Amino acid sequence: MTPESAELRIENGADYIESLRGRKLNVFLFGERIDEPVDHPIIRPSINAVAETYDLAAAEPELATAVSSLTGERVNRFLHITESADDVVAQNRMQRKLGQLTGTCFQRCVGMDAVNSLFTVTHHIDADRGTTYHDRFREFLTGVQRQNLVLGGAMTDVKGDRSKGPAEQADPDLFVHVVERREDGVVIRGAKAHQTGCINSHWILVMPTLRLTEADRDYAVVVAIPVDAEGLTYIYGRQSCDTRAMEGGAGIDVGNATYSGQEAMLIIDDVFVPWERVFMDGEVNFAAELVERFTTYHRRSYVCKTGVGDVLIGAAALIADYNGVERASHIRDKLVEMTHLNETIYGAGMAASHESVETPAGNFEPDPMLANVCKHNVTRFPYEIGRLAQDLAGGLVTTLPSEMDWNHPELGPLLDKYLQGREGVPTEDRMRVLRLIENMTMGRNAVGYLTESMHGAGSPQAQRIQIARVMDVEAKKGFAKRLAGIEDDA
Amino acid sequence: MTPESAELRIENGADYIESLRGRKLNVFLFGERIDEPVDHPIIRPSINAVAETYDLAAAEPELATAVSSLTGERVNRFLHITESADDVVAQNRMQRKLGQLTGTCFQRCVGMDAVNSLFTVTHHIDADRGTTYHDRFREFLTGVQRQNLVLGGAMTDVKGDRSKGPAEQADPDLFVHVVERREDGVVIRGAKAHQTGCINSHWILVMPTLRLTEADRDYAVVVAIPVDAEGLTYIYGRQSCDTRAMEGGAGIDVGNATYSGQEAMLIIDDVFVPWERVFMDGEVNFAAELVERFTTYHRRSYVCKTGVGDVLIGAAALIADYNGVERASHIRDKLVEMTHLNETIYGAGMAASHESVETPAGNFEPDPMLANVCKHNVTRFPYEIGRLAQDLAGGLVTTLPSEMDWNHPELGPLLDKYLQGREGVPTEDRMRVLRLIENMTMGRNAVGYLTESMHGAGSPQAQRIQIARVMDVEAKKGFAKRLAGIEDDA
Amino acid sequence: MTPESAELRIENGADYIESLRGRKLNVFLFGERIDEPVDHPIIRPSINAVAETYDLAAAEPELATAVSSLTGERVNRFLHITESADDVVAQNRMQRKLGQLTGTCFQRCVGMDAVNSLFTVTHHIDADRGTTYHDRFREFLTGVQRQNLVLGGAMTDVKGDRSKGPAEQADPDLFVHVVERREDGVVIRGAKAHQTGCINSHWILVMPTLRLTEADRDYAVVVAIPVDAEGLTYIYGRQSCDTRAMEGGAGIDVGNATYSGQEAMLIIDDVFVPWERVFMDGEVNFAAELVERFTTYHRRSYVCKTGVGDVLIGAAALIADYNGVERASHIRDKLVEMTHLNETIYGAGMAASHESVETPAGNFEPDPMLANVCKHNVTRFPYEIGRLAQDLAGGLVTTLPSEMDWNHPELGPLLDKYLQGREGVPTEDRMRVLRLIENMTMGRNAVGYLTESMHGAGSPQAQRIQIARVMDVEAKKGFAKRLAGIEDDA
Amino acid sequence: MTPESAELRIENGADYIESLRGRKLNVFLFGERIDEPVDHPIIRPSINAVAETYDLAAAEPELATAVSSLTGERVNRFLHITESADDVVAQNRMQRKLGQLTGTCFQRCVGMDAVNSLFTVTHHIDADRGTTYHDRFREFLTGVQRQNLVLGGAMTDVKGDRSKGPAEQADPDLFVHVVERREDGVVIRGAKAHQTGCINSHWILVMPTLRLTEADRDYAVVVAIPVDAEGLTYIYGRQSCDTRAMEGGAGIDVGNATYSGQEAMLIIDDVFVPWERVFMDGEVNFAAELVERFTTYHRRSYVCKTGVGDVLIGAAALIADYNGVERASHIRDKLVEMTHLNETIYGAGMAASHESVETPAGNFEPDPMLANVCKHNVTRFPYEIGRLAQDLAGGLVTTLPSEMDWNHPELGPLLDKYLQGREGVPTEDRMRVLRLIENMTMGRNAVGYLTESMHGAGSPQAQRIQIARVMDVEAKKGFAKRLAGIEDDA
Repeated sequence: MTPESAELRIENGADYIESLRGRKLNVFLFGERIDEPVDHPIIRPSINAVAETYDLAAAEPELATAVSSLTGERVNRFLHITESADDVVAQNRMQRKLGQLTGTCFQRCVGMDAVNSLFTVTHHIDADRGTTYHDRFREFLTGVQRQNLVLGGAMTDVKGDRSKGPAEQADPDLFVHVVERREDGVVIRGAKAHQTGCINSHWILVMPTLRLTEADRDYAVVVAIPVDAEGLTYIYGRQSCDTRAMEGGAGIDVGNATYSGQEAMLIIDDVFVPWERVFMDGEVNFAAELVERFTTYHRRSYVCKTGVGDVLIGAAALIADYNGVERASHIRDKLVEMTHLNETIYGAGMAASHESVETPAGNFEPDPMLANVCKHNVTRFPYEIGRLAQDLAGGLVTTLPSEMDWNHPELGPLLDKYLQGREGVPTEDRMRVLRLIENMTMGRNAVGYLTESMHGAGSPQAQRIQIARVMDVEAKKGFAKRLAGIEDDA
Repeated sequence: MTPESAELRIENGADYIESLRGRKLNVFLFGERIDEPVDHPIIRPSINAVAETYDLAAAEPELATAVSSLTGERVNRFLHITESADDVVAQNRMQRKLGQLTGTCFQRCVGMDAVNSLFTVTHHIDADRGTTYHDRFREFLTGVQRQNLVLGGAMTDVKGDRSKGPAEQADPDLFVHVVERREDGVVIRGAKAHQTGCINSHWILVMPTLRLTEADRDYAVVVAIPVDAEGLTYIYGRQSCDTRAMEGGAGIDVGNATYSGQEAMLIIDDVFVPWERVFMDGEVNFAAELVERFTTYHRRSYVCKTGVGDVLIGAAALIADYNGVERASHIRDKLVEMTHLNETIYGAGMAASHESVETPAGNFEPDPMLANVCKHNVTRFPYEIGRLAQDLAGGLVTTLPSEMDWNHPELGPLLDKYLQGREGVPTEDRMRVLRLIENMTMGRNAVGYLTESMHGAGSPQAQRIQIARVMDVEAKKGFAKRLAGIEDDA
Repeated sequence: MTPESAELRIENGADYIESLRGRKLNVFLFGERIDEPVDHPIIRPSINAVAETYDLAAAEPELATAVSSLTGERVNRFLHITESADDVVAQNRMQRKLGQLTGTCFQRCVGMDAVNSLFTVTHHIDADRGTTYHDRFREFLTGVQRQNLVLGGAMTDVKGDRSKGPAEQADPDLFVHVVERREDGVVIRGAKAHQTGCINSHWILVMPTLRLTEADRDYAVVVAIPVDAEGLTYIYGRQSCDTRAMEGGAGIDVGNATYSGQEAMLIIDDVFVPWERVFMDGEVNFAAELVERFTTYHRRSYVCKTGVGDVLIGAAALIADYNGVERASHIRDKLVEMTHLNETIYGAGMAASHESVETPAGNFEPDPMLANVCKHNVTRFPYEIGRLAQDLAGGLVTTLPSEMDWNHPELGPLLDKYLQGREGVPTEDRMRVLRLIENMTMGRNAVGYLTESMHGAGSPQAQRIQIARVMDVEAKKGFAKRLAGIEDDA
Repeated sequence: MTPESAELRIENGADYIESLRGRKLNVFLFGERIDEPVDHPIIRPSINAVAETYDLAAAEPELATAVSSLTGERVNRFLHITESADDVVAQNRMQRKLGQLTGTCFQRCVGMDAVNSLFTVTHHIDADRGTTYHDRFREFLTGVQRQNLVLGGAMTDVKGDRSKGPAEQADPDLFVHVVERREDGVVIRGAKAHQTGCINSHWILVMPTLRLTEADRDYAVVVAIPVDAEGLTYIYGRQSCDTRAMEGGAGIDVGNATYSGQEAMLIIDDVFVPWERVFMDGEVNFAAELVERFTTYHRRSYVCKTGVGDVLIGAAALIADYNGVERASHIRDKLVEMTHLNETIYGAGMAASHESVETPAGNFEPDPMLANVCKHNVTRFPYEIGRLAQDLAGGLVTTLPSEMDWNHPELGPLLDKYLQGREGVPTEDRMRVLRLIENMTMGRNAVGYLTESMHGAGSPQAQRIQIARVMDVEAKKGFAKRLAGIEDDA
């Protein structure tokens, strides 16, 4: 059933998973076409993580849903246009909870932050240019809310030579652009890198990735396309330890057998989009605004990593407990340090959300300084938390024999005997928590907890540029001048 | 005019300064009794800083005042009992602003945080023990609000041997305690160390400093005493570079000629307190609660340091500008780093305040985890911001000749010639900003920006203990177990 | 050919690899017995790394060999007893070079450091107890030098409940111990965890892992056993991404196709050792000395990681170059920071070696403070260097499609088009360097570069304990007292 | 007696102090001319610190003297041309010892490092240009060694607009330059900022401060001038808390009553220098080489700060002891961290010295990478060590009443009562160690321990530039390419 079939209405995680079956997608993994991603052991955990966002909405509607002004009904918070600062804060609470539940990236924040920033930007373009993007966008979003679909956001172009802009590249396709304008719509081409959860979505919002100049007019394009649109190809990104999911067994070696993130490359080969799903076309001046508004939401969305951090802190405490050393002062102290760093991220993110202000379009947007500060800490602290988790884990976290050894009739008992920790703790439990720590610090979910923390929503330097922009150094100089007794000549 | 004379009603900074004249205080500085502290060049800047809290209330009432339920009138926010999370947040905004205006400690946060925590704790004691402390306290506070006085909080005992409790000390007076109970009140004795702004206050709330045991019954005492009560002695703490204020001149060498903090030792030598100003007497179980509630408020009050940080960042940007290097990429990058650290503190503090919850007494109290995280970052980041400020300042920040050399008829022109920076910048301005940076990183206001950031509201280890208490490691272990596939036996 | 056959004499890497064939070892990997480890795609890279130590000796004899007093001939430096501080320093130079050549752990340092510490300790035991361990040990080592074999060191017991000593464990076998003393030798039992390169060795020196008490007499045992001794079982530790080595292809996805480390669990099930290979038996007082001397050597051996760091810094510079951003100031600055941290490690290690002093046995031993400081920095800086490498790499380091996609007839050209970086750089080269960075920060060699840096030669807390022991705080107090004008009552 | 009078021969500290009497120097402090600096309470401690370098030479000749090839006699190590790597290492040992003895900057390293770098550079100029600077310099130095004088080095110009070179400045005098060339010598003009110990020297070596271009020919000048040369003016730099030395008393409040550093501005107003003391004149290409060679020596000379660090660690341990908490695990742990950081500095410095190589002139020069790494850590770690010292000190370090209060007949006993720490510790001792910590972290010697650590021998960015120069990123790229399987096209 395609997202365009209006009968589709997803109620929970199981519905959602079912909705992904039978789609005709060009998905490739390890050089092979995957007919039914939902059944593939490497892909399925990423789908489970998204499914959790539906089940949480059912279980805790206050947390994970909101009443939408568009539909008048309760909708999944990931699709909701924020109508108050509390709505923005509630996103952070929901994100932390889902991080705790999945221990990985649940993939829906890009879409959530994209709809909110597009809500404002389309409104702004219309006000400035007399276009009708905002109404088109509201209509589109209303439908998505009604059907309760997953909406992905595709921003990061593959970029080619980073020292050149879109129109300057040797190959014009290195940034997504309009290659044809027809009466009924536009045709776009290009590719988007590291697309979080794209295959698990129903719709994708394609957006420009950076500030554009007049020369880049064809690159200033925002559209919504269904995931199964003709011309789309998805190439699955390979992740550390991904093939362990194909080894079967009791799921010990995978560390986190149920959940994972998803990153794929999306190739857009002349995809047609009807005008009603085009939300920007050529308004180059608004590309930077869109990126800035989007990243303001998205950089404080990385509060999700504090939920993942909670899991890793818990795992570290657990292995210390299993090793019999939880009461040692240096162990306690490291758990406190991990928590302090984790909550420091949370603090900046929550403050950004609490300090949200209303935009001219009527939705609420976080504080840009604090949002960038939040994300900038996310590019540092999870690595340190991960380092401390490995410290508490002990060397076994990377030298543990495999699950197959554990299942071997002669080796199993030997391992059981020699991998004992504190009395009363089953050796298998000790192995399981060690594998979880491996999973989160070097294995599959380290991709989400570490590398995505570094580069998602913009690499560290992007935040520094933004902090420099909003830090108002002139006001600060003024404070200093006044106290130093320097006459202000300004 | 004593605070007890009900006619006193302070309207602004000038009134406030006037209110301090003519009091009979036992104040000592450098071994001499100071008859009129308000006229002493070392003390006056600390009074100016407090005066700023009055002037801000007049200039920006939305920011620095609130309508009190106790009086029904608009009162200074430093005396206000928080009636919403927004009230708690507003404290942080006011604190940052005052940090920007004074570049130092303005001394009124202890009192503000003390009244809020006592408001709750007296309510709790009454509920539990049938006492009437809460009403007494409301009455007392109502009067203070009406008169618009400065209320200090005296918590930190001198403590003696840190490995022993109050009742175990060789000398029982090393913690403040009740030495006599009369029909009309109690008599207390002891000493409080590093009392911020005590001499600049009208009233002081004396409180216990740590968790007490049954043996410590006489130490479980909370009272309000007027600053000019008989039996009180104040010994001024000496601060780095304090005597520069006595050198006269154009105020270059002092760095910040107008404002400073104040720390003094308060010796309580058998001071009588009538029952109506006793708010705890012997309820040892509530000492820890009071300390915890107080520090929850007070640890996020250190957001004030982000205002001071703004000044220092501005000063660093200014000297870079004067040196002709403001555009160098490494200079820009250091200013960004300083700002990032400063805003990280702000984020945790603001989040703590926004997340305030109502207490049974009806006032609002910040989130304890985030409050502790805020303060813990304050024990680290100002030192790093200070280090970076010294980096940008160049070595001259500590090798600059004195203001007297600058005023010398022959040396002055030589210095003017040889201390030129970028063309068009007066050499005196360059000297002034260097002295401001010295003031904030090594001089008088480094006491407030650095050492007080370390120890005020509790030393680093105190926050770590509190973080450990509220981090709920068992819940985190639960998250890890679920994802690792470990059966929960709890 | 077993190590005991005196005809064996290894001349180079090829000889060495050949020497491993045809041995009867109980090696298990993924629950299967591996008959010929040398031919297994997962194991072979670890053997190649060791082979490099032979080839370097041939190529640069000044660096990687030394003339031994035992044999009078030039021997591989990994088997050499240090005869001067220069000899100790030369170890560090060789280690850095091998790190640069292999990008991973080359596994021979434990053996090198074990022979040097045993050389001293056996000498000390003999002097104290009248035993003849030292001569036995010299004779054994002379043979090993002549044959030019690989000598491993087995120290880390599996330890069970970390809060209990060997004799207190529920199962006495959780630390290796003597279970029988016969006329001709001893029988030992137990298991050693994370044994670096054990399968690639010819002999293993079994040693106690911690300070022992009188109750632990049977645990105070040092012996040499051949790797193919009856009763030994090796269970290969599984490493992040290990199975990629089995996928075949052009070796892109493995990142470093040629080299890897090796960690296995060694189970000792009643292995007999003749007296001539017993170098400690029951002298519990010397266990701590052995551990301390060994870790003094071994903690500065982690200078090897600076060679690995050189590779990672080079890889980060390469990807920046391929992305077209190598000249950006923040990129340059991060490369400088990575180098600064890397050289800081090198500094402490080299200083420790240069400051070596002669032991009573005549060999030279590094400075314990600086050796511990070196290793302690190794538990921190490689993680930060790895974080910065991921920063420079960009998100593609963890979202890159697989080598199989690259080889696919239709996907390959698409990837070639869309994964272009700077003009003139082959896309495959860009993929290769990204996979190398993945390999070193999350993949197989991250085990050696990160987790082994944390726990090898003792976890961070072990260094802190040792630093506390040698920091001579009393002398430092004396300096302070003198300057503060405090009379010294000592 | 002037340094030119050949009869002068200094044997010890007392002689040295005597040698400073009766000189006609233009020294200004606080706008007043100081006739006899040796008797001024603010200046004297800086002279005592230099005197300690003489007394150490007498007490420990192996450490602090060496046999000079120039004189054939034993000379003070500060005047010695290094003749081996051991000589370079011995400088570091001596520096650490003097740091421990004085707790501050003893001011002679600049001269020591200047003579060694000039020894090489004059040799190089002569070889290249056929000049005779090297012989002139040897002769000059021989005389200085015979008389055993203090030789200062004046490098840092006042620099004006940092974005412009010497010849581009609005005022040509902002860098020292030749204003006249006569038959018998040159006349120079300009000013040098923050001149360490200049007033306490006998001779000053004036050198250029940065890379010069052809346009800067008159700035490429190196000369030796006697400290009492006509035309020199010294303006004393003011330091945090400097006037406490004038308060008299028992020296409690000064923290370190005996020793301090010295920084002054040196104004050179048309000073004539005869040719025999000119060691460079116009050879612009060698200015950069001189700076680079000088900083290579001087950046690892900052090992002196580890001696000062030892004092501060000792002081922190002492106050913890006096407070009764030395055994608390977090206290112990902070002392370990301080030590670890301190020894990390030492490691890099010592490694740089041990790795010294012979120059074409025959003296030995440290490794430039490690020397820069040493200094770069010095710009970071002392600030962190200082922060931790303040943590252990408690708030009293900045709120302690003054020594005058302690001496007051009524306040003294009150303070004695209330500032008690652990039983048996005199309150005065507790005050003394607190004042020492204040002195080193905010007071007078914080100038040397912190700010000079930041900027002396070049600010942080100077080291980063130098590290970038010597890090050989191309070799590192080569290592990465080889392991990634990338063909090297170079």
